[in-house]
Amino acid sequence: MNLKSYVREVPDFPKKGVSYKDITPLLLDPEAMDLAVKLFMQNLPHTNIDKVVGIESRGFFFATLLAEKLKAGFIPVRKPGKLPHNTHREDYELEYGTDTLEIHEDAIKKGEMVLLHDDVLATGGTAAATCKLIEKCGGEIVQCNFLVELAFLNGVDKLKNYQVNSLISYS
Amino acid sequence: MNLKSYVREVPDFPKKGVSYKDITPLLLDPEAMDLAVKLFMQNLPHTNIDKVVGIESRGFFFATLLAEKLKAGFIPVRKPGKLPHNTHREDYELEYGTDTLEIHEDAIKKGEMVLLHDDVLATGGTAAATCKLIEKCGGEIVQCNFLVELAFLNGVDKLKNYQVNSLISYS
Repeated sequence: MNLKSYVREVPDFPKKGVSYKDITPLLLDPEAMDLAVKLFMQNLPHTNIDKVVGIESRGFFFATLLAEKLKAGFIPVRKPGKLPHNTHREDYELEYGTDTLEIHEDAIKKGEMVLLHDDVLATGGTAAATCKLIEKCGGEIVQCNFLVELAFLNGVDKLKNYQVNSLISYS
Repeated sequence: MNLKSYVREVPDFPKKGVSYKDITPLLLDPEAMDLAVKLFMQNLPHTNIDKVVGIESRGFFFATLLAEKLKAGFIPVRKPGKLPHNTHREDYELEYGTDTLEIHEDAIKKGEMVLLHDDVLATGGTAAATCKLIEKCGGEIVQCNFLVELAFLNGVDKLKNYQVNSLISYS
């Protein structure tokens, strides 16, 4: 089973010239989902993991599945104003302007081992901001993993201090 | 283990007078997560389920877990403009104005059995719109389930044609 064959390329979405990687066909297939989870698990370092962080909102799809397999807690990192309790905030640069992500301050205890997950690694800005949020809480990042990596955007350069794993890569 | 004890009530969020039910403490606890999934599974009718629909974005937390347990496909229902392929759209009323949800047209085959999941049942507008989307695709709704029900908002009235199950209720 080739996971890449379950990703649908949608031309000119969300804007002209971009070939969007649509993972919804993969989500529709329970065997492909199971294989993805199995591969994520196989590629993790042999370390106890206390928490899995998923980035809003497509990062939530696999983050809860990984948390369940690891018997770890699940933490959503969200857009501003969505988390109701005290948060740490981190701004990051977009192509035009900036965006912000938040994490609940009490989501991670100092020294806890944390896995970061998102669906797609593109320029790495979102993941790098999330790493900073995890470290503000005192967490140690075990790995950043992604279903899809757009390798031609060199997102790994923004995650040099971390172990990175992706299941499907586009060069 | 009492699941309700894992829900944090946040006063005056997102606006004055509203007591927000924050499920993130429950997500942080792997045993509470496991119990929730177990109870969801116990309360399902004994029918084959082909697809699980989760509503953006907190509905995604448990919908993928349920899909995995049921060996069913997972379908995200999303805000407008997020799904890249051809969609059905459904408008629904908010307190002030309207909002819209979308589903990929090819996500469900005619006659497939579908479980709808969201984190919170409030007024029922979002869930009712999602039921319409599922039926536009030709799906049959087996159950609508929710982690939390704000029973005082009578959301079940908008879901009279469906089986509804909630794990935690506030009256």
